Amino acid sequence: MQIIGEKINGTRKEVGIAIANREESFIKHLAKEQVEAGADLLDINAGTTPDREADDLAWLVRIVQEATEVPLCLDSTNPIALIEALKHIRHEPMINSINGDPERLENILPIVVKYNCLVIAMALDEIKFPQNVTDRLNVLKKVFSATRNTGVSDEKVYIDPLVMTIGTDIKAGLTALEAMRVIKRIYPYSHITCGLSNISFGLPNRFLINRTFLTLALEAGLDSAIIDPMDQQLRETLLATELLLGRDQFCRKYTKAFKSKVTRSGEKGKDR
Amino acid sequence: MQIIGEKINGTRKEVGIAIANREESFIKHLAKEQVEAGADLLDINAGTTPDREADDLAWLVRIVQEATEVPLCLDSTNPIALIEALKHIRHEPMINSINGDPERLENILPIVVKYNCLVIAMALDEIKFPQNVTDRLNVLKKVFSATRNTGVSDEKVYIDPLVMTIGTDIKAGLTALEAMRVIKRIYPYSHITCGLSNISFGLPNRFLINRTFLTLALEAGLDSAIIDPMDQQLRETLLATELLLGRDQFCRKYTKAFKSKVTRSGEKGKDR
Repeated sequence: MQIIGEKINGTRKEVGIAIANREESFIKHLAKEQVEAGADLLDINAGTTPDREADDLAWLVRIVQEATEVPLCLDSTNPIALIEALKHIRHEPMINSINGDPERLENILPIVVKYNCLVIAMALDEIKFPQNVTDRLNVLKKVFSATRNTGVSDEKVYIDPLVMTIGTDIKAGLTALEAMRVIKRIYPYSHITCGLSNISFGLPNRFLINRTFLTLALEAGLDSAIIDPMDQQLRETLLATELLLGRDQFCRKYTKAFKSKVTRSGEKGKDR
Repeated sequence: MQIIGEKINGTRKEVGIAIANREESFIKHLAKEQVEAGADLLDINAGTTPDREADDLAWLVRIVQEATEVPLCLDSTNPIALIEALKHIRHEPMINSINGDPERLENILPIVVKYNCLVIAMALDEIKFPQNVTDRLNVLKKVFSATRNTGVSDEKVYIDPLVMTIGTDIKAGLTALEAMRVIKRIYPYSHITCGLSNISFGLPNRFLINRTFLTLALEAGLDSAIIDPMDQQLRETLLATELLLGRDQFCRKYTKAFKSKVTRSGEKGKDR
């Protein structure tokens, strides 16, 4: 699974302050620690008002690229900010995100094409938040009509099936998993990603729910997720799930992780 | 999911000694702590030679029933020991286990019928250990032919699809999960159970693999398992999985567990 590190996000208070004050070392540290923990990409969200976002996002891109070598996922819906940031991008970039909203598609897709980006497509539109799998599929039909017409190949699209909290709808987990399975069948060349932590909003012990959902989602077709790579138990769950799903040849990644860096956190009793 | 507590097992050294020495309080404590931790049934294995097993198993049954009120799962293939123990049984008993071996079926099934027992049926026979799903289904065909002919209804049968270690076969997890799905379809009135911990034999950090496999297996149809109910992280994973699979109405069991008894073990950082 591809891990997209979520921590450089200006809507988080301390990160927002660091961006405003141009605290290079704080941002670089956030970048480095995520990559060292296993992030394959880093999400970059300036989290600022439209008049500042272009400057802030471009600054973040420059600083993060000085600290790390991984590709970046530009988390913005502001075409001006995206273009400004993309001028500085070194590796194949990802844009987070488009959805079924025609205006959004019209604004963002030409940028995706021009800069040869990967793009996250959320299964919602400007009209309503989809309640079931069919609603999600209807939105995606519009999205893929637009991406294909613009010349964006399905391989470049990372579909977010929308994960809602189980706190208000006990079927929310099942709906998201079913959506992943169906989407995987209909768009086999695209990827499936999601913001994992929505699933547990409003419930106690959210980390536990999130990592348990990761296991179920990986089985259902998830191949990328925006997560906190510093969450060691989440990473351990990822390793164990990929092992159990037969995706870790000769158990190499798993046994390597548990022989070296990753400690056996949270384990008790003897290893039976 | 029904939890069958695994700890009263005479093949475990300290339990074997306690049985030999008739240490009532040790066995009663093992029984009580498992039930308090959530066991729905208790597996009872005397783990002794045929000449002693009848006495030992019957003693265990009497002692455990003095300490707790849950039904017992008699873990023996010895008809004499089973009959002796069943004379003392108070609640609907389970027998662990039959398989496709005709001799075993002939010896045990009349006891299952006479004492109106539930019975675990393992998907293997005397000839060979099944390598794939088809092999398992072929064995189960023989088993169900025998149970149905003897008058044991499908509802009374708990099928163990056989879980083998991923340490020697990277597809072992996928095979077990696929077997569960297919078995659930073919025998919808039966239950699916398993000894969870086989999956991780020979690998490091076995608890992590076991609880991650529990999540995948519950999704695939598992509705009972022989486990250590004292493993708190396993129980927490069970709660979170049943929540995510929509089986915990109004999140009641989950929120109750995390508001009271079950502590948030292994969690770090703030509850985001």
